[in-house]
Amino acid sequence: MSPEEFRLHGHQVVDWIADYLAHPERYPVLPRVEPGELANALPRSGPEQGQPMEAILKDFEARIVPAITHWNSPGFMGYFASTATGPGILGELLAAAINANGMLWKTSPALTELEQVTLSWLRQWLGLPDPLFGVIFDTASTGVMHAIAAAREFADPGIRIQGGSRDLVLYTSEHAHNSVEKGAIAIGIGRQNVRKIPVDARFRMRPEVLAEAIERDRAAGLRPFCVVPTVGTTSTSSIDPVPAIAEIAERFGLWMHVDAAYGGSAALAPEFRHVLAGAERADSLVVNPHKWMGVPIDLSVLYTRKPEVFKRAFSLVPEFLRTAEDSRVVNFMDYGIPLGRRFRALKLWFVMRYYGREGLATRIRDHVAWAQELAATIAADDRFEVCAPVPLSLVCFRRKGAEDANRELLERVNASGEVFLSHTELNGRFVLRLAIGNHATTWSHVQRAWEIIQAQ
Amino acid sequence: MSPEEFRLHGHQVVDWIADYLAHPERYPVLPRVEPGELANALPRSGPEQGQPMEAILKDFEARIVPAITHWNSPGFMGYFASTATGPGILGELLAAAINANGMLWKTSPALTELEQVTLSWLRQWLGLPDPLFGVIFDTASTGVMHAIAAAREFADPGIRIQGGSRDLVLYTSEHAHNSVEKGAIAIGIGRQNVRKIPVDARFRMRPEVLAEAIERDRAAGLRPFCVVPTVGTTSTSSIDPVPAIAEIAERFGLWMHVDAAYGGSAALAPEFRHVLAGAERADSLVVNPHKWMGVPIDLSVLYTRKPEVFKRAFSLVPEFLRTAEDSRVVNFMDYGIPLGRRFRALKLWFVMRYYGREGLATRIRDHVAWAQELAATIAADDRFEVCAPVPLSLVCFRRKGAEDANRELLERVNASGEVFLSHTELNGRFVLRLAIGNHATTWSHVQRAWEIIQAQ
Repeated sequence: MSPEEFRLHGHQVVDWIADYLAHPERYPVLPRVEPGELANALPRSGPEQGQPMEAILKDFEARIVPAITHWNSPGFMGYFASTATGPGILGELLAAAINANGMLWKTSPALTELEQVTLSWLRQWLGLPDPLFGVIFDTASTGVMHAIAAAREFADPGIRIQGGSRDLVLYTSEHAHNSVEKGAIAIGIGRQNVRKIPVDARFRMRPEVLAEAIERDRAAGLRPFCVVPTVGTTSTSSIDPVPAIAEIAERFGLWMHVDAAYGGSAALAPEFRHVLAGAERADSLVVNPHKWMGVPIDLSVLYTRKPEVFKRAFSLVPEFLRTAEDSRVVNFMDYGIPLGRRFRALKLWFVMRYYGREGLATRIRDHVAWAQELAATIAADDRFEVCAPVPLSLVCFRRKGAEDANRELLERVNASGEVFLSHTELNGRFVLRLAIGNHATTWSHVQRAWEIIQAQ
Repeated sequence: MSPEEFRLHGHQVVDWIADYLAHPERYPVLPRVEPGELANALPRSGPEQGQPMEAILKDFEARIVPAITHWNSPGFMGYFASTATGPGILGELLAAAINANGMLWKTSPALTELEQVTLSWLRQWLGLPDPLFGVIFDTASTGVMHAIAAAREFADPGIRIQGGSRDLVLYTSEHAHNSVEKGAIAIGIGRQNVRKIPVDARFRMRPEVLAEAIERDRAAGLRPFCVVPTVGTTSTSSIDPVPAIAEIAERFGLWMHVDAAYGGSAALAPEFRHVLAGAERADSLVVNPHKWMGVPIDLSVLYTRKPEVFKRAFSLVPEFLRTAEDSRVVNFMDYGIPLGRRFRALKLWFVMRYYGREGLATRIRDHVAWAQELAATIAADDRFEVCAPVPLSLVCFRRKGAEDANRELLERVNASGEVFLSHTELNGRFVLRLAIGNHATTWSHVQRAWEIIQAQ
């Protein structure tokens, strides 16, 4: 494509996006398509000869857009949100054009150093201690898998050479994200060696049960090696008692990985810094700027106090990847599985500078306040009940009465096209989740969601 | 950022990119910066209050661009190339704006179905059999780790429950990419259970040695479970004898994963389809559209004949991720570690449609022809020697004589700013690598590179 053709179509696409961002509510949040509908509408085979950009963009609008679930909609309250802010999109656009691969410092110094700079800024904003080594992964699921592998390396370096063991035991809560168990299975810990510690009435891991489980496993000759508390669980946004868990981890010599993928961003507001209490004692921690910080997907940050353990676990450098600068720089390929690395830090830098800490904190503060206001409204309504505390921006609730009525309520609300909610199961009951987090959402959107819920 | 502000800055950024793509040679391919130079030039802390986009874009140009290694330069011949084509950039821009997360079909049907459609098109273009299940990962390194995990699941489903074993053995060649060994270590196979089979004089895995190694390991009570041949090795682009290796894999019941990350794209041209001979018998295979197909990083495709094994290895569905459509759709989260998934298929669809199969094949055909022409020129020059066959678009060569002279030659060539080469080690000797693959590269750029090499 010639630069002039790129310029022409680039302007068209920018205009389309500006209109899209101005009126995301033009589209139903959940698309009204059946499985296979889009695939069946597209040709069975790709074209032999190239096609004009006009035709491709026309099909994008006619075929693709109607089959998109609009995460950008102010009514998207189904999962923890991800917002495509303007600066985030522009950062991603420039990253795609630059197309650098940051496997080594040398293969794009700007990529490596901007990743170091932005993660240092973010560390300060979150009130985390210095020094702390940061590295960007695609998602928190990838991050926790790496963290568990580092924990294994820390506990038993011989496994790297000899292969897996069957006696290393990992602890997390029954409300932890399934990526913890998935990561443990992937690296060969074994599902039977993952303990899901029960939660208290507020859905928080019970530290005394954790300590008992560790002692029981030790007495049985097993090797407890890792514990993963969560700051902002997926089902209810509950915050595990990290300081007490850190105490136990230190007492028994376990690696502590804190999953703060959603909740960690709240610490950008000083009044919510407490959500990361104890996280300064973590061996590793994940927070996702692509959730609450206005950075388009994907960008998940892993921090660690023990980068050398990650390097021991993952570094393996063939001759063709050696450079003269190796001893003086960080080569991020040494800290994980992916060799190729996109210039993700660029969009983070754009977003952090454009909004500033205070700009991002203001949005987070609003979302929490609205969630609590909504929860109070729901709690005051005799027909409904709030099913979990609201420490952050997620409200779990249900209509009093039959399970099926709640399933139907969810379906009807989502069929409105104006709002998208999801569900979970709490104490054996079907519960609706309303998660506020998109930067386009305002208090009036939250009120409208409540109107729609009541009207069903 | 208001839609109008996005429109304004979006147009500015598009214009900057159009100019950049028109003249990538304005910048030295390798930036002239010292380690820490960029980091030291940026503020130690992020801003409390937001800053204007004008200032951010100005700093991007003044600070970031001079520290970028220009993968888009026509003189970038250091590693297997990745090209930011116009349609690829526009696809990525729209994906960032849409910001969909394709963890489930429901969370954006278009994302899941366009991934299925484009990977079916690509399968046909590569001459691979139907049915074949495709899934997009970030990189081939991630893909091979998943493939080895699937191979383990296939060999011994009990490991998922009980944890790792120390007797599963994986085979690859001594010229395989280090990601194979890294993936095996990560999932707990153990480094001592990775056999690197010697290569022949053309740097191809020796099947008879593979068969002997498997038999020896079986006799020793070990469990051979996986073999990973390569189509286009990193050091020399050699192509392992996949049909013979497939034969052995079938005879001994091993999972065969074909690493065609770089070389697989050559099959887009019918005369190079032979590079994938035998790949139709693979249990899994990786090819990287973000290398030779004009798709910006990252986008790596994994194909498998055994999707149910990947699903057994990686599926773990909590209540909050269940949907009414689950039985009728593919939820890609079930096939790997990452839960969040960007809309990568969009840029692939843009590129496949804009260039067509023939448009991409023409570029690949040219690159191979130029590499072979250059190799012939080098071979005809008494001062130099070609150090490996040139089946694809990579030329390995050295100046006859001392090792140090070749190291210095590489440094001086790279200091020119016009061309960037890399190196490897072959038969104990330092060898220069010149890899043609950027879509902006022309025959005159290759000739110019040769002039610069000779002039040192």
